[in-house]
Amino acid sequence: MPRLTKRRSHKRGLAPGSLVFIGDKATEITQMTVIDYNEETFQEQKLDTVEKCQPFKKKPTVTWLNIDGLSNVEVIRKVGETFDLHPLILEDIVNTTQRPKFEDVDKYAFVVLKMLTFDEEKNRIGIEQVSLVLGDNFVISFQERVGDVFEAVRDRIRQGKGRIRKAGSDYLLHALIDAVVDNYFIILEKVGDKIEELEETIVTDPKPEAMRTIHALKREMIFLRKSVWPLREVINNMVRSESALIQDSTHIYLRDVYDHTIHVIDGVETFRDMLSGLHDTYLSGISNRMNEIMKVLTIFASIFIPLTFIAGIYGMNFNYMPELGWRWAYFGVWGLFVAVAVLMILYFKRKKWL
Amino acid sequence: MPRLTKRRSHKRGLAPGSLVFIGDKATEITQMTVIDYNEETFQEQKLDTVEKCQPFKKKPTVTWLNIDGLSNVEVIRKVGETFDLHPLILEDIVNTTQRPKFEDVDKYAFVVLKMLTFDEEKNRIGIEQVSLVLGDNFVISFQERVGDVFEAVRDRIRQGKGRIRKAGSDYLLHALIDAVVDNYFIILEKVGDKIEELEETIVTDPKPEAMRTIHALKREMIFLRKSVWPLREVINNMVRSESALIQDSTHIYLRDVYDHTIHVIDGVETFRDMLSGLHDTYLSGISNRMNEIMKVLTIFASIFIPLTFIAGIYGMNFNYMPELGWRWAYFGVWGLFVAVAVLMILYFKRKKWL
Amino acid sequence: MPRLTKRRSHKRGLAPGSLVFIGDKATEITQMTVIDYNEETFQEQKLDTVEKCQPFKKKPTVTWLNIDGLSNVEVIRKVGETFDLHPLILEDIVNTTQRPKFEDVDKYAFVVLKMLTFDEEKNRIGIEQVSLVLGDNFVISFQERVGDVFEAVRDRIRQGKGRIRKAGSDYLLHALIDAVVDNYFIILEKVGDKIEELEETIVTDPKPEAMRTIHALKREMIFLRKSVWPLREVINNMVRSESALIQDSTHIYLRDVYDHTIHVIDGVETFRDMLSGLHDTYLSGISNRMNEIMKVLTIFASIFIPLTFIAGIYGMNFNYMPELGWRWAYFGVWGLFVAVAVLMILYFKRKKWL
Amino acid sequence: MPRLTKRRSHKRGLAPGSLVFIGDKATEITQMTVIDYNEETFQEQKLDTVEKCQPFKKKPTVTWLNIDGLSNVEVIRKVGETFDLHPLILEDIVNTTQRPKFEDVDKYAFVVLKMLTFDEEKNRIGIEQVSLVLGDNFVISFQERVGDVFEAVRDRIRQGKGRIRKAGSDYLLHALIDAVVDNYFIILEKVGDKIEELEETIVTDPKPEAMRTIHALKREMIFLRKSVWPLREVINNMVRSESALIQDSTHIYLRDVYDHTIHVIDGVETFRDMLSGLHDTYLSGISNRMNEIMKVLTIFASIFIPLTFIAGIYGMNFNYMPELGWRWAYFGVWGLFVAVAVLMILYFKRKKWL
Amino acid sequence: MPRLTKRRSHKRGLAPGSLVFIGDKATEITQMTVIDYNEETFQEQKLDTVEKCQPFKKKPTVTWLNIDGLSNVEVIRKVGETFDLHPLILEDIVNTTQRPKFEDVDKYAFVVLKMLTFDEEKNRIGIEQVSLVLGDNFVISFQERVGDVFEAVRDRIRQGKGRIRKAGSDYLLHALIDAVVDNYFIILEKVGDKIEELEETIVTDPKPEAMRTIHALKREMIFLRKSVWPLREVINNMVRSESALIQDSTHIYLRDVYDHTIHVIDGVETFRDMLSGLHDTYLSGISNRMNEIMKVLTIFASIFIPLTFIAGIYGMNFNYMPELGWRWAYFGVWGLFVAVAVLMILYFKRKKWL
Repeated sequence: MPRLTKRRSHKRGLAPGSLVFIGDKATEITQMTVIDYNEETFQEQKLDTVEKCQPFKKKPTVTWLNIDGLSNVEVIRKVGETFDLHPLILEDIVNTTQRPKFEDVDKYAFVVLKMLTFDEEKNRIGIEQVSLVLGDNFVISFQERVGDVFEAVRDRIRQGKGRIRKAGSDYLLHALIDAVVDNYFIILEKVGDKIEELEETIVTDPKPEAMRTIHALKREMIFLRKSVWPLREVINNMVRSESALIQDSTHIYLRDVYDHTIHVIDGVETFRDMLSGLHDTYLSGISNRMNEIMKVLTIFASIFIPLTFIAGIYGMNFNYMPELGWRWAYFGVWGLFVAVAVLMILYFKRKKWL
Repeated sequence: MPRLTKRRSHKRGLAPGSLVFIGDKATEITQMTVIDYNEETFQEQKLDTVEKCQPFKKKPTVTWLNIDGLSNVEVIRKVGETFDLHPLILEDIVNTTQRPKFEDVDKYAFVVLKMLTFDEEKNRIGIEQVSLVLGDNFVISFQERVGDVFEAVRDRIRQGKGRIRKAGSDYLLHALIDAVVDNYFIILEKVGDKIEELEETIVTDPKPEAMRTIHALKREMIFLRKSVWPLREVINNMVRSESALIQDSTHIYLRDVYDHTIHVIDGVETFRDMLSGLHDTYLSGISNRMNEIMKVLTIFASIFIPLTFIAGIYGMNFNYMPELGWRWAYFGVWGLFVAVAVLMILYFKRKKWL
Repeated sequence: MPRLTKRRSHKRGLAPGSLVFIGDKATEITQMTVIDYNEETFQEQKLDTVEKCQPFKKKPTVTWLNIDGLSNVEVIRKVGETFDLHPLILEDIVNTTQRPKFEDVDKYAFVVLKMLTFDEEKNRIGIEQVSLVLGDNFVISFQERVGDVFEAVRDRIRQGKGRIRKAGSDYLLHALIDAVVDNYFIILEKVGDKIEELEETIVTDPKPEAMRTIHALKREMIFLRKSVWPLREVINNMVRSESALIQDSTHIYLRDVYDHTIHVIDGVETFRDMLSGLHDTYLSGISNRMNEIMKVLTIFASIFIPLTFIAGIYGMNFNYMPELGWRWAYFGVWGLFVAVAVLMILYFKRKKWL
Repeated sequence: MPRLTKRRSHKRGLAPGSLVFIGDKATEITQMTVIDYNEETFQEQKLDTVEKCQPFKKKPTVTWLNIDGLSNVEVIRKVGETFDLHPLILEDIVNTTQRPKFEDVDKYAFVVLKMLTFDEEKNRIGIEQVSLVLGDNFVISFQERVGDVFEAVRDRIRQGKGRIRKAGSDYLLHALIDAVVDNYFIILEKVGDKIEELEETIVTDPKPEAMRTIHALKREMIFLRKSVWPLREVINNMVRSESALIQDSTHIYLRDVYDHTIHVIDGVETFRDMLSGLHDTYLSGISNRMNEIMKVLTIFASIFIPLTFIAGIYGMNFNYMPELGWRWAYFGVWGLFVAVAVLMILYFKRKKWL
Repeated sequence: MPRLTKRRSHKRGLAPGSLVFIGDKATEITQMTVIDYNEETFQEQKLDTVEKCQPFKKKPTVTWLNIDGLSNVEVIRKVGETFDLHPLILEDIVNTTQRPKFEDVDKYAFVVLKMLTFDEEKNRIGIEQVSLVLGDNFVISFQERVGDVFEAVRDRIRQGKGRIRKAGSDYLLHALIDAVVDNYFIILEKVGDKIEELEETIVTDPKPEAMRTIHALKREMIFLRKSVWPLREVINNMVRSESALIQDSTHIYLRDVYDHTIHVIDGVETFRDMLSGLHDTYLSGISNRMNEIMKVLTIFASIFIPLTFIAGIYGMNFNYMPELGWRWAYFGVWGLFVAVAVLMILYFKRKKWL
């Protein structure tokens, strides 16, 4: 469970701008892929050294450099040097506890996002930090691990579908952010499925496991919220920023992403409300059951305790107990048993406990 | 229960502006009706092909084109081409998970609303998306299903009642929005009836079913709220927009709708508060009952357990038990029984448990 | 219980400005009274037809026309024609589900308020809508029922006390609003008395009835709040409106009313907090009692159950049970009884359950 | 308990500006004291009639007129006449239900504050209204009762300590407000002590009395909050007011008081949170205990109930019960007793209930 | 536990600007250390008298004077005189109950922060006030106790690492604030570890100790929050202040600290939410267990109570009880025992209680 306590403390006391990787060393090897395209040309290749980025930087085509794995700080530093990134930006990239943010530094724009996955087995949301750097003809994306939600974007570039090959690097940036936000809907759908499943089972049979799932999902909503809320501001800042890097024609697409973000936030809040509701439903289901059990116990005990007492009386061994000798006493006692039981049951009926 | 998880995921990875219908395929066939009117003339007809809209578009009369059923994406695309709608708008129309919104695109205004129905049997609110496009002499309404809340508006147009035949397309837009909002009051009334019914029954006899209804209504309030809250902003934006499409004389009517929206929001919040109150009332009713049951159990058990013990003593078979031979012992034990019972009852009375 | 569901649905589909009375037909007959005054003259009379208002309208004196009973829509329409009121205003007057509001229409100002009563028997707040129309030399007040909180204002006019006879119609408007707001303090006092009574009884003897009163008052607070909250904005809007109808010298008095409104809101919030506190106190009182009952049950059961078992052992009829023949066995068993009981009690004492 | 329902209703229907004392008639006699000083001179005397204020008013020295007891409305009116106070201000002074406020009337500034006391026995906060009127060379303070928190200020004036004798009436006003706010810290400290005491006892022994103290303190926090929250705005308004009466050099001191007010509000909120926490701690303490009691009951009952049944079997009087004649049957049954008891205990151990 | 009630009351009635130490007299002796540096030179020494600061003050190098221990008010006053600090600032320095704040006085800037420690044994956060005074070539830091979080800053100065030796006193101020805020992450990590530990144990075995830890951590979060929330405003004010003391080049670093502060606040809120979630998990764990115990009790009691009653019947000593003489009666009764038990178990199974 490294989500709460990524060892940020390793950085304690270091000067601002020091590069220290904070996070799980999920990928030891850093992988670099470059996709370079414009309306006519398209090129995709894996790079083994940072130096090989150099030629792409100078070409007027749009270059998307994707880097998977941040634990090798040396590589990140070299990328920083090649593309002339500020040390504070580099520090933010390798510090995977960053809050989503947008920064408009003069020569480039910097965006930090959280890419999410949902483990349906354990009801856990996995969080991976994605940092995006936008230059005037390139986008660099930094990810913690191999595997991402950008495959569809790559396909659109490869096949030249839609507007992407004709547009600039700012549209590519938008496409990547859009892919991340679109993925939140997938997470929401999966969580929504779980919630609807719970709604079904909780009414018919409120089991402790259901409760545990509710608690787990509630906790995950806390994390989801933490990743999504700041995004609203991030994208709003992008839209309102007067950065020359983001063209006016891209604004309408960013506003679209903004709408999606609001939608996701709405969804998270709705789920939180629904989980609270389920929690209440569960508790009242449990309390109803407890109530019923108590009633059965009380009725059994209250009926049989007096009867047992009566039987106990005539089990006493006193020498002089006149009833014992009576001819019909035993049957009379049976009558008493039945009478007491019936009276008790009528009493409970009147009280509406039966 | 498709409300939580309409399969938005089908859109994953597509370029912005791709037309994919998201929602229940409730109506396979798309139906088109056109109402064309001005102060003097009135014409209403069903269309079987999109091409037949063409003549209405050019006429200076107000044209209301209503389209029921969005699953046939091809039809929507053709309407878009005919009326020159932006692909992003078309995408929003067929994506029925849209949040209520108002967009003022240069040549037309675009409004997304939620039309609600209430299934009193299941205590479920049904949500249908209505998209309205306002041009300078036409309004196009897109609905998911046949059947709507606009019949009264149609009647007013047919019979030339009120201001509607004399006014322009913006007033028609207002009339449609007003009809949708007015319908929210109907929903609120139905929910209000349910709540008052619950208030009655919950005090006299707190049953688990009442609880389930409370939970169900609470959940529906979450959805109602989600549909109504954004409306406030939508209509506010319409009033403040400087779109040439919306005439100044219509503003006063929009402000009226705005007031209604605030009223609906107020009502939803009041109902939420009242349902929370009912929830508490139910819980304390249950806990009172539990308390009473516990008291009866305790009193029965506490009175008879010592008595049974006493009876047990004299049921022992020791050879030497002097009391057994005493002449009045049996009656003495009876006295003891009565004395213990009376003392216990007095004790409970003093404790105010009886 | 008509508060939740006044049949607004009757209005569904009507054009804006249609006059439909929504509310309880409490008063079939509409009563009209006119009070006409200036510093020197004073006249008060009942009117039987609307036409008789006409002469007062033209006089330079201040005219206060009070109308009780809104169900006769025809009368309202005539008043509207006589004083030249906009149809939308008239619609608001007869729709008694209106939210408190202030509207500054060019020739007059329009205020909607809620006049409250408190039924101490049933702990219910009664809500009556009061609409006030301010013209440059008249005020028209519309009430749902005969009987109001304005008697003191009438007395001040009749007796020429204070500033009222010297001031204009705007001061009269202020006096009426002030009377309505002042009346809220009376309601608050009555509710406050109830709360203090509850505070007393709930600690000494937490009965289910107390709980029911708490729930009832909580619910009434929801309604009170709904009536009072919007008032803040209403009066604020009045103060800030640049309407020529409201003179500068009246502003200070409106600010005074504003202060009172804030005070009432404060009071409502305080009462809500206190009722929540009482709710908690009640619940913990109940849980303490439950706890005590459980303890008694447990102690009784735990002491006597083992004793009864021991007695049961020596009640067995085995042919060979050596103890039965022992001379002091019976007394030994008594010793055992006492020892077990004492040990149990000591155990409970140590556990601090006794 | 007059805090909730001071009889404001007595004022109902009176014209604005009517002087009616609302509050407890704690002090029948109105006492007046005057302190008159500048850097060189100092004079302190009790006044028996209002007329004797007259000479002080004209002197260029700073005059502090303190009035204890507001029930004698005639005195207040005379003071008003002497110092030319507006009737609405006088009305606010005698209405002790006033919300803290600041008003900048042209010739003077008017401040209403709440002076608090804490009765540690009853855990009750006492509230006394203090009204301060600032003129250009005088301050008049109105209090409900004899006894206040201003003694230290008087001492500073008498002994000429600090800046006070050199500064004007606005600094005196600040000193009085500061004394009132400083006193809130004393209240907070006392409440804080109570809370820490509770924290200790509630963990070791959660008694109903602790609960009652928590509820009482929570309720007092509601009142404290109500007195302190508006103060923030009051002092902020003073700082930002452009009244000529408050010199620029005093602003820094007012900002200091403002900081203290924020600090007090922080403290109140912290205490509210802590009391909520204590409430939860108490409840879970109680529920733990309940749990333990239930466990003991269950274990006792579950072990002995089967044993008693077995004993009951061999207490039956059937003529033909083969076991009764067996030689070792009695000892065998003892073995059975032990075996059952051991098995039950093992079962409970495995369930972790023991 | 002095956190709630540091004896601020000692200051009651004193004039503003009076120096009274409020806090724990943790360090009787006041220690002074000076670090003086610029890019070329570096000097570090302990001072025994305040007068020895004098020479450093005049040097153009950056001087950092650190003072540990505030109880010796005389020393603080002398420092104040030497560096010409305003009495109100000095008062704030020795009053350790200060809220975090930033003040921009003309010749210097003044910052109050809270330095935190976390006692993992007792789950308690320790709070120490740090006051920082920034002059144009010096920073003075005042701490309550020896021992701080600034060692890394000292090392960076000593070893000339990073930017610090080249930058001015404003950068030093930033470095100190950064060190304090960085330390909050350490606290958060420790608390996060505790929370994750709790998450593990609470599901498997919900013990009262876990509850106590939850309550303790919740309480500490209140204090943490109180220290961190105002910081947001403090640093924001620093960034926006137009003080000449803070150079433009330092703003980017302050914004970095601002980001960290938001991050810490986020973390605190997340922890609060998670602790609430754990609280709920614990409670439902407890209630599940209670439920299970109740079930076992009910089942045992309900099965054996009727059986014991039957045994009791045939233990009665009536002379005429026909069954007693029957040959197979005893075995028949055994059959009855088994039948009743089986029926009960089947009933419970059907009710899903087993």
